Amino acid sequence: MWEVGIIGATGYTGLTLISILKSHPYIKINLVTSNTYRGKRISEVFPLLKGIFEETLVPTDQDHRGRCDVYFLCLPHGNSMVTAAKLYDGKAVIIDLSADFRFEDINLYEKVYLKHRAAHLISEAVFGLPELYRDKIKHSKLIGNPGCYPTSAILGLYPLIKHKMLEGNIFIDSKSGVSGAGREAKLGSLFCEVSEGFRPYNIGIHRHEPEIQKEVDKYQDIKIRFVPHLLPMNRGILTTIYGRLKESMETEKIIKLYKETFNNEPFIRIMEPGIYPDTRFVRFSNYCDIGIKIFDDGSFVIVSAIDNLVKGASGQAIQNMNVALGIDETTSLTGLPQYP
Amino acid sequence: MWEVGIIGATGYTGLTLISILKSHPYIKINLVTSNTYRGKRISEVFPLLKGIFEETLVPTDQDHRGRCDVYFLCLPHGNSMVTAAKLYDGKAVIIDLSADFRFEDINLYEKVYLKHRAAHLISEAVFGLPELYRDKIKHSKLIGNPGCYPTSAILGLYPLIKHKMLEGNIFIDSKSGVSGAGREAKLGSLFCEVSEGFRPYNIGIHRHEPEIQKEVDKYQDIKIRFVPHLLPMNRGILTTIYGRLKESMETEKIIKLYKETFNNEPFIRIMEPGIYPDTRFVRFSNYCDIGIKIFDDGSFVIVSAIDNLVKGASGQAIQNMNVALGIDETTSLTGLPQYP
Amino acid sequence: MWEVGIIGATGYTGLTLISILKSHPYIKINLVTSNTYRGKRISEVFPLLKGIFEETLVPTDQDHRGRCDVYFLCLPHGNSMVTAAKLYDGKAVIIDLSADFRFEDINLYEKVYLKHRAAHLISEAVFGLPELYRDKIKHSKLIGNPGCYPTSAILGLYPLIKHKMLEGNIFIDSKSGVSGAGREAKLGSLFCEVSEGFRPYNIGIHRHEPEIQKEVDKYQDIKIRFVPHLLPMNRGILTTIYGRLKESMETEKIIKLYKETFNNEPFIRIMEPGIYPDTRFVRFSNYCDIGIKIFDDGSFVIVSAIDNLVKGASGQAIQNMNVALGIDETTSLTGLPQYP
Amino acid sequence: MWEVGIIGATGYTGLTLISILKSHPYIKINLVTSNTYRGKRISEVFPLLKGIFEETLVPTDQDHRGRCDVYFLCLPHGNSMVTAAKLYDGKAVIIDLSADFRFEDINLYEKVYLKHRAAHLISEAVFGLPELYRDKIKHSKLIGNPGCYPTSAILGLYPLIKHKMLEGNIFIDSKSGVSGAGREAKLGSLFCEVSEGFRPYNIGIHRHEPEIQKEVDKYQDIKIRFVPHLLPMNRGILTTIYGRLKESMETEKIIKLYKETFNNEPFIRIMEPGIYPDTRFVRFSNYCDIGIKIFDDGSFVIVSAIDNLVKGASGQAIQNMNVALGIDETTSLTGLPQYP
Repeated sequence: MWEVGIIGATGYTGLTLISILKSHPYIKINLVTSNTYRGKRISEVFPLLKGIFEETLVPTDQDHRGRCDVYFLCLPHGNSMVTAAKLYDGKAVIIDLSADFRFEDINLYEKVYLKHRAAHLISEAVFGLPELYRDKIKHSKLIGNPGCYPTSAILGLYPLIKHKMLEGNIFIDSKSGVSGAGREAKLGSLFCEVSEGFRPYNIGIHRHEPEIQKEVDKYQDIKIRFVPHLLPMNRGILTTIYGRLKESMETEKIIKLYKETFNNEPFIRIMEPGIYPDTRFVRFSNYCDIGIKIFDDGSFVIVSAIDNLVKGASGQAIQNMNVALGIDETTSLTGLPQYP
Repeated sequence: MWEVGIIGATGYTGLTLISILKSHPYIKINLVTSNTYRGKRISEVFPLLKGIFEETLVPTDQDHRGRCDVYFLCLPHGNSMVTAAKLYDGKAVIIDLSADFRFEDINLYEKVYLKHRAAHLISEAVFGLPELYRDKIKHSKLIGNPGCYPTSAILGLYPLIKHKMLEGNIFIDSKSGVSGAGREAKLGSLFCEVSEGFRPYNIGIHRHEPEIQKEVDKYQDIKIRFVPHLLPMNRGILTTIYGRLKESMETEKIIKLYKETFNNEPFIRIMEPGIYPDTRFVRFSNYCDIGIKIFDDGSFVIVSAIDNLVKGASGQAIQNMNVALGIDETTSLTGLPQYP
Repeated sequence: MWEVGIIGATGYTGLTLISILKSHPYIKINLVTSNTYRGKRISEVFPLLKGIFEETLVPTDQDHRGRCDVYFLCLPHGNSMVTAAKLYDGKAVIIDLSADFRFEDINLYEKVYLKHRAAHLISEAVFGLPELYRDKIKHSKLIGNPGCYPTSAILGLYPLIKHKMLEGNIFIDSKSGVSGAGREAKLGSLFCEVSEGFRPYNIGIHRHEPEIQKEVDKYQDIKIRFVPHLLPMNRGILTTIYGRLKESMETEKIIKLYKETFNNEPFIRIMEPGIYPDTRFVRFSNYCDIGIKIFDDGSFVIVSAIDNLVKGASGQAIQNMNVALGIDETTSLTGLPQYP
Repeated sequence: MWEVGIIGATGYTGLTLISILKSHPYIKINLVTSNTYRGKRISEVFPLLKGIFEETLVPTDQDHRGRCDVYFLCLPHGNSMVTAAKLYDGKAVIIDLSADFRFEDINLYEKVYLKHRAAHLISEAVFGLPELYRDKIKHSKLIGNPGCYPTSAILGLYPLIKHKMLEGNIFIDSKSGVSGAGREAKLGSLFCEVSEGFRPYNIGIHRHEPEIQKEVDKYQDIKIRFVPHLLPMNRGILTTIYGRLKESMETEKIIKLYKETFNNEPFIRIMEPGIYPDTRFVRFSNYCDIGIKIFDDGSFVIVSAIDNLVKGASGQAIQNMNVALGIDETTSLTGLPQYP
């Protein structure tokens, strides 16, 4: 039995971690923290946990070293790096859900975010996308869990960039449910400011664009353009990717390529021709569904769908933990997608 | 390993049964039926099942006797009784999610619904509300799974009627998510006819009123009035019950009474004073949450919340199955409520 | 042409006032205020106003005396009374959308809210429900616009209390869209905390209960119990009222009574037997729709529906203004309900 | 006073026509038809019209020649052409909201839809996009009202194609509210099949793609790819267009170009740099809002938003009517956008 701490447990990613880990046969959550709700039981913050999980929240700012085998950091970027630096001891596995350890290149991180205060740890960290970096994750004690949008975009593009099949610009049109904005009281996340509306935001300036770009850059010198939109729904990301292949191929062939590239991946499902993902069909699950359409002239549409809080955050974090602990990667992640 | 058949598997209750039973350690689903989609794989009807459960749908109208240890009937009332009569052999456990076996009194059933064509089975059937009828369910081979509204209303009222504490009229104001209307293409269930609106329906004529009334009648001669409303959301029922106690008591005392009455019930949660249920906090779970407010003059408000597809249908059906099979009643039903 | 000021113009009631008044043939909005957004154009706060209404917001805290013929106060209670006291000069019409001038009895107000700092004005104020107080509104310079819930409840009950037909307790089960909570960034109004959920709140302690009770008290000594719930939708209130008549009557007779009582009321629509209101059918309009069901034993269900931002706030405020100015009461309020 | 008939009045476009035309000072609706609801008053179909507009529905299939000055056809394609052929007399203005008269090229129409049975009228018809074809509309008696998606896409692209500024592929990523699917009872439009989900559909095979393409083809030999998605909301279309300019220019310059191209257009609003449309800000109005972002390398994002039932259907139809009748184009179309 491994002991797990959730640092910053009162947001949606914290709740999702608890929800999934409760069914994990080898895990015990023995630490949940919050500065805002310190001293309260977590079931007071999330009444749905009443009678199920009633741990008392201790302050995030306390010293939690040596208490757990695995720490999930659900903190804002900037805070996460500091906490990680305190907790890192080369033994415990630290999985950071913020952006602080997603960038191998500190200069790029600092350009996009802010000054890094745990620079010495960057070389220890691995980008926690198991489909691409499973081998590295196996030996890592510090995992930078990918962003939700980047997870959907990179998995959607990976077979094409891996085989250097792209040319020209790539446009990534992503749409996210509101839970992606977190559980903070802000005007733009109010029901009345979201419901019955749809809008793009941060065009050309969203910080997930460089996170996607850096992964593309490892394979092909292709510029991506990322445009996020806010959906009037709780959870789910659908990413529609537009671009052009160097050489036109039939949809069926590209589907075959995707199936081969993601061969045996437990959480990737490739749709048959003419079938496309729906966020409903991955909701509450760790799946990433991918649909593909190639036109005669080589232009293409790739559609990927994930649950932003599961494969886009807490589910993937647990998948990373399973890999890092050397246990079956799907443990506690086999729940079915749920709708309606 | 018991083998299970789902007769009429392509509605929301069928899907929810599959979703829950997939994690059941002693159950294998070896039969799923549909007349409409016969010959298709169920993952074509529900693409979320792709790679998870791909059984082929066989016609509902075929002879399925002897194939399963447990049959769940997810058919319209009227059809269910006929199918039950064919399948009933005193060995297999038949759990009917329609109204056909909920009424002990055939005259009442026929007044509310239609002529019963399996009258000989009514005396075999038990009303599948485990909190009230667990002992009978243990020995039954035919279980009439309660309606969604009645589950929420009866559980909310039970401690008060059991102790004969009511006087005067009881008003039951229920609100249900749209999935309660099933997965049929009808005008009133269209997104644009439901979203951003709220309305009562079938005031004084809803068929769940006599289903609630008959249970109340077993304890007290009190007339209930039931008013259902349609909520612009997928799932969840919240029932707000208004009435008056014979003798006024403090809220705390009634809460204590509820806790004692439902002592050890695994799926009933009684809220503390001043706390009331929210459908979000039972969503996707088998819980029934109950909140209580007693006023000085003895008038009261009882609030109960369930997920209409789980405790209000498929979850309760599986709870009944577990009881009938003599295994731990919570098996496969321990998933946490889910939000957002 | 009358000149109008909107004090506190950047909430939903301010926006709704602007939206309706833009089509008013005798009104010009020449003042919009906001402390938070002072100096900005209101079209920057509400981009939908771009090219339509681009007035610059001036500070609420400035001295606005003598600038307008009509002032709408869209301020929090407590603030409104102070502003009203400054602006009141016996000439301009002041319409306060807060609770500060809804109570004729200052002691009751102070018990429910807080110390009143414009006590000298209370005797000047009239409760702005035109269907009950039209004659008083005609000569008033200070109108306390009713709360949204009280509007729906009082109009639903009025014919019964006016004719002293009730006995026993009255239970008022109200459900409101989220815009009733205003345009403030608070956790409980976040999309993810509201969507796909439904809950009661403030049972027995909501401040609209005494506002309803005081009107009932004028006719009958009947105790009402008010239970508000939060709907996962933007706008609309549906109120379902339960109680008992002293003497049972047929539904048709009570419907006739309602039609007579509300004879010629331009914004009240009484439904035929078996038809009940839907918030969709009053949305964006100033209508209050009322449906009635009387049972054999004299118990009853009354259902009323309004748009909480129109008849429940800004529309009714404009109706009051029209009455106070002596012009056609329906001016600029004839827009149709809108759905989907 | 012109007399107007709405042929097929019980869908969402019919309702929206009624809603807008009720405030039109020169129009009287004297004919509403429906085969399904023949003999009923339209206020029985749409209870929101109670007391406002209670015309009786006459059968669509009757002979309605000579009864009206203007006919709006809200019929399925295929039916519309037949009705138009019956009604066309060179005097009455016929505005067809189906696809039947949108294509100048009958071969293209028949390839995309079906055999045309009123081929002789195609040369009489004009594509009813006033911003492009106002002069032709002025003299036309037969107007093919554009599709909702094409309206948003063509207006978004028009300044760029008019000036032949594009190169390479254009990707048009559109998202529509559910009302675009009409008021028919079909599985895919059910609340539970739409809410809390998001999906693309008809990739590469949607019939609005050739409607957009034919307009692009008039200016530039550029292939567009159109991908529609279904939004979990009632109304609104947001279209995000991706492509590349032949020569890179600053965002500000292109914004200037759009403002000049759409100079004096009453219903086009061009956003300032960094500001992008939100469907909420055009909801219930006839506006088309357009936002623009040009990147250094000449790739671009154009975002346009309309209300699919207003500028995308009935509002534009009335705008066309106003133009055809020679009256102020904005008559009855000046209502503000509405939210929340």
